[in-house]
Amino acid sequence: MNFKNFIILILFCSNTFSQTTIEQLNLMPWPQNITLNEGKFLLKSNFKVNITGVVNPRIFTGTTNFLRRLDGRTGMFFNQGYIKNTNEEPNAQLQINSLKKGSVGINEDESYKIEITSNKITINATTDIGVLHALETLLQLLQNDSNSFYFPNLIISDFPTFTWRGLMIDVARHFQSVDVMKRNIDAMVAVKLNVLHWHLVDDQGWRIELKNKKKLTELASDGNYYTQEEIKNIVRYADERGILIVPEIDVPGHATAILTAYPEIGSKYVKDPKEQKQTQYTIERNAGVFTPTLDPSNPETYKLLSEIFDEVCPLFPGKYFHIGGDENEGKDWDANPVIQKFKEKNNFKTNHELQSFFTLKLVPMLKKHNKEIIGWEEIMNDKMPKGTIIHSWKGPNEGSPAGESLINAAKKGYKTILSNGFYIDLMQSVNDHYLSPIIPKEAVLTKEEKDRILGGEVTMWSELVTSKNIDSRIWPRTAAIAELFWSNEKAINLKSMKKRLQFVSNRLEELGISHIKNKKMILRNISNYQDISSLENLSNICEPLKIYTRNKGGTEYQMYSPFTLFADACTSDASDAIDFNELVDKYLQEKKPEDLSRINHYLKKWIFMHSDLVHLSENAPLIQPVLPLSQSLSNLSKELLFAFEDKKQIDKSLLNELFAKCNSKNHADVELAICSGLEKIIDNLN
Amino acid sequence: MNFKNFIILILFCSNTFSQTTIEQLNLMPWPQNITLNEGKFLLKSNFKVNITGVVNPRIFTGTTNFLRRLDGRTGMFFNQGYIKNTNEEPNAQLQINSLKKGSVGINEDESYKIEITSNKITINATTDIGVLHALETLLQLLQNDSNSFYFPNLIISDFPTFTWRGLMIDVARHFQSVDVMKRNIDAMVAVKLNVLHWHLVDDQGWRIELKNKKKLTELASDGNYYTQEEIKNIVRYADERGILIVPEIDVPGHATAILTAYPEIGSKYVKDPKEQKQTQYTIERNAGVFTPTLDPSNPETYKLLSEIFDEVCPLFPGKYFHIGGDENEGKDWDANPVIQKFKEKNNFKTNHELQSFFTLKLVPMLKKHNKEIIGWEEIMNDKMPKGTIIHSWKGPNEGSPAGESLINAAKKGYKTILSNGFYIDLMQSVNDHYLSPIIPKEAVLTKEEKDRILGGEVTMWSELVTSKNIDSRIWPRTAAIAELFWSNEKAINLKSMKKRLQFVSNRLEELGISHIKNKKMILRNISNYQDISSLENLSNICEPLKIYTRNKGGTEYQMYSPFTLFADACTSDASDAIDFNELVDKYLQEKKPEDLSRINHYLKKWIFMHSDLVHLSENAPLIQPVLPLSQSLSNLSKELLFAFEDKKQIDKSLLNELFAKCNSKNHADVELAICSGLEKIIDNLN
Repeated sequence: MNFKNFIILILFCSNTFSQTTIEQLNLMPWPQNITLNEGKFLLKSNFKVNITGVVNPRIFTGTTNFLRRLDGRTGMFFNQGYIKNTNEEPNAQLQINSLKKGSVGINEDESYKIEITSNKITINATTDIGVLHALETLLQLLQNDSNSFYFPNLIISDFPTFTWRGLMIDVARHFQSVDVMKRNIDAMVAVKLNVLHWHLVDDQGWRIELKNKKKLTELASDGNYYTQEEIKNIVRYADERGILIVPEIDVPGHATAILTAYPEIGSKYVKDPKEQKQTQYTIERNAGVFTPTLDPSNPETYKLLSEIFDEVCPLFPGKYFHIGGDENEGKDWDANPVIQKFKEKNNFKTNHELQSFFTLKLVPMLKKHNKEIIGWEEIMNDKMPKGTIIHSWKGPNEGSPAGESLINAAKKGYKTILSNGFYIDLMQSVNDHYLSPIIPKEAVLTKEEKDRILGGEVTMWSELVTSKNIDSRIWPRTAAIAELFWSNEKAINLKSMKKRLQFVSNRLEELGISHIKNKKMILRNISNYQDISSLENLSNICEPLKIYTRNKGGTEYQMYSPFTLFADACTSDASDAIDFNELVDKYLQEKKPEDLSRINHYLKKWIFMHSDLVHLSENAPLIQPVLPLSQSLSNLSKELLFAFEDKKQIDKSLLNELFAKCNSKNHADVELAICSGLEKIIDNLN
Repeated sequence: MNFKNFIILILFCSNTFSQTTIEQLNLMPWPQNITLNEGKFLLKSNFKVNITGVVNPRIFTGTTNFLRRLDGRTGMFFNQGYIKNTNEEPNAQLQINSLKKGSVGINEDESYKIEITSNKITINATTDIGVLHALETLLQLLQNDSNSFYFPNLIISDFPTFTWRGLMIDVARHFQSVDVMKRNIDAMVAVKLNVLHWHLVDDQGWRIELKNKKKLTELASDGNYYTQEEIKNIVRYADERGILIVPEIDVPGHATAILTAYPEIGSKYVKDPKEQKQTQYTIERNAGVFTPTLDPSNPETYKLLSEIFDEVCPLFPGKYFHIGGDENEGKDWDANPVIQKFKEKNNFKTNHELQSFFTLKLVPMLKKHNKEIIGWEEIMNDKMPKGTIIHSWKGPNEGSPAGESLINAAKKGYKTILSNGFYIDLMQSVNDHYLSPIIPKEAVLTKEEKDRILGGEVTMWSELVTSKNIDSRIWPRTAAIAELFWSNEKAINLKSMKKRLQFVSNRLEELGISHIKNKKMILRNISNYQDISSLENLSNICEPLKIYTRNKGGTEYQMYSPFTLFADACTSDASDAIDFNELVDKYLQEKKPEDLSRINHYLKKWIFMHSDLVHLSENAPLIQPVLPLSQSLSNLSKELLFAFEDKKQIDKSLLNELFAKCNSKNHADVELAICSGLEKIIDNLN
């Protein structure tokens, strides 16, 4: 055997025997059952898809998009361009069968089975919605070596743990374009979410074109709203992808926008309503909980709402309508003698009873359009029909035990979903969300009660995001939460999740999700189009201020403030910070010189970073606000380097002083995410 | 004076006396008149805008968007959020006055005047459309030092040289989303273009929803089309920004999509029309010139077209309708005895006469909707009404002198515009376009003839682009061409243009133009989400194959092929290549050691780049196709380094052989743009 043949043999063997391991799979959410077999299906350009069975046309869009994404990733020129009918390619390598037409909603059979062998891939599902899930799994299964792409031989059978797997997007605080909605729908599908809760109305804006109530958009949208055609278009787009859209019109609180257009149904007391009500309300520009509230004692309120529902409901074919109901503090009710008299007359002891009266009035208005009501937990009262879904949201931030209302609702016979723990606008680590199960371990529930817990919903409130950075707040963390909603609790594994999440996060780019690219774009603007590597380095150890600490009092930022600042480029789970903090832990445990050397490398990098930022700032005013932070870190890094190098006696009080400056949260609305690591280093110096 | 005060004095002085120079201004297109004065207007958060005069509401959208872009760039928290009425802020620092309502079209007064003094900025314009131009100029004027943003004191008075300043986007070959259209409209406004020519129909697809001709989208769009609401939405969006939209339905050639839906009006000869015509046409997937052509002898053709125009025209309020008319080779006409007989009967000697008959039949159909006709140069014939605009496109690539038909049309009394020289899909250098004036210097024209030359139009044909990289083909080169259309020919200056273009290119990001960010995204996919710096380095010296050489025969790529390849990330005017080639010229002239050292640095960088790419390719099959090129460059670089270091006798034949491999155009659909520099180095070695 000559040398060349020997090499070929080695390549051949390594190719044949390289076996995919379960750890190599970047599936998210992790499937219910998976059996890995030997061998693989090698992808070639003659790859084709064939569909059989009874299907909804969405399967053709879905499989055609699947082919396009597969060729985009692999650069392969597939012969098959479009799939438009069943049984077009009987000999195709990918055979898909669906037993019946799927319909979008939360009670559909979403299960699927994939079998991959060396020469064939088979997808079987009850409905085309299961098929769409299978195609996403297949895309996540794609592997490669240096020259080829392949799928590992395996069998997967999969189905969701929870039936309501939602993402809420608030388009009232900051309007989000049609494009933002569509690309996020695609990303939802990629991680098997199935409900898009569209928060369309709040104090800061009304976002729905109403042909019979033009004042709402004319006076309360700043020109930023969806036309009815756009709404239908988005609903159709979502339906084609198996996503149910649940619209929300938040009442009776959060009503500043509605009342800007229709002040006559507001609760604010004025002596002569005709004279003064018109000037009582203006669209809200700040963030927070505001007093404007609909007047539950005024018959005109119900007339208007009924007319609104009559026009809005037909735009949304789904079964559920979200009526909000949260955070009505009742201040204007308490201050209004007319409402007080109404309360007395009806024998309502509390504002909650009054709000329940209001909520119950909405039930028939929505029933008329075959809608079941879903509302935030404040709508719960004994008279609500049992089909109502209670949306549990309060938790420690609101002074309640997490998910208390979820358990209460389930016990009282209501269906319910959980959002507490999934408030991604709070910029917490993905770990915090991932380790927060929907049903608390300690909860004691009967099977019936458990069954009433339909699932969970991620909430993206938009006080501090624009279309340019909303993706970086939703993703990738929502993918990990989606696993909590879909997968068996036994599959929940933090370390494995973080590795898979990185893969899933990258692949979201092919769906147009801009979390990676727009971060760099914001930094380019900050640097005034100079080199951004130092800003990137800083952003990789900084995280935006968390849990309502960024926008103090809700008045630092208006809705029209710039969100092109350093904090807007930063994200939670800053990558270098995670690495550094883990490195410090490892070093302190094992004391290996190579780990110390990596720590030193970080410290030197941060010293250079600061001097580079100072240099860049000469031509970039937007860098100025981060300099005190990079200066503090540079100072501390220098001292730590000295300490490590034994060049100077350790001055703990100086180190602590320098550390305190780094650990301050008064820097450009970010916090330094390496502080835990830095603190441990200082504590362990002696 | 102590040292600290001395420093403060220096800073103060440098601040006071630093005077903006004309070279610092990054205006594009360059204004007609500009006088720079001493001093500057310092931007502060109390900055406000006030509008007076007679205005169209587009001015409120325009000024509000202006504020948002200004705060995005500067990070300033302006107090003023929205501008909704005239005279809202009489004491505002920016005073805008418009004399009358502007209307979108090519005959509007677009002139404006800006005066900036240290405490006030004044914009005066005849119409709000002039005001929009002024706001874009103002944004380009923004300067900064290390801590502040300011506008230099100056007076600008400006107006366009040509009245038709167009960009054509082909959405037939590759459909482009609403978002792509909108962001490109914004970018057009930024460089003062005023006509968006929307190429909506071609062999590869019909993109307009017709309620009375549903077959067109059902059979000939692959589901990719604009609803009528979306079209109206885009037209409204354009109108708000002062942009005229000119729709194109290309007939009688380029008609495969129309004939896929309505084969009965095709020219293909079949003995028994009823039996066979239905199967004659299928939507085209390749690129090129195809035979399917409407039948000019069939009355049904005109009936159908008339009905189509009746539904399409009302969607577009503008005065012009583009009917295509190009590249009808008449093959099916020649082969069809019925059409031959018709030709004979009507005494038409040539197919051009037959096409003229066809074209003249369209005139009244469009006149009915108050539309003037514009068409590609082939529509020119002596009977066309003089209001017709002849769209000159042929040039050396088609065997004609550049702009021949432009001069002919002007001389024959037609209005005319030029696209030859502005085919940006050909991936040529911006220099080639920028140095190609609309009216050739040698043309001898009377004033009347010259006046008939309305302007120019950039054409973005979309055979080889998708929504993900179309921006990188249109921009930034179109900004330089826009200068050719707007500015005085005396302002045309290659060196100055290139510097200003870089600035304008960067700032297009704030309008959503994705040319910078999507390049990196494509490279991330190619690298399989490993480090992309070596791929970026390679892409900065490579350019996609030019002038119809990439997609040989039009059949290498189908419309559904992947456009996520290395060539799709590369652009014309590769940045490092320009730098390297200039560096070589400089070194060969001046022989400075520091320039040789920079050349050596490049060579070393390319040697490392190749070894890094080999390493990355172990986990990235999509890198494989570029390795032969990086290998060849690495080999040549090594030999050149040896040669410079005198370590080896120079082997010219080896160098030439290695160079030939670099200079081959058989590498991953790109060419190495440093070849001219490399060749000069080799030639000068001895």
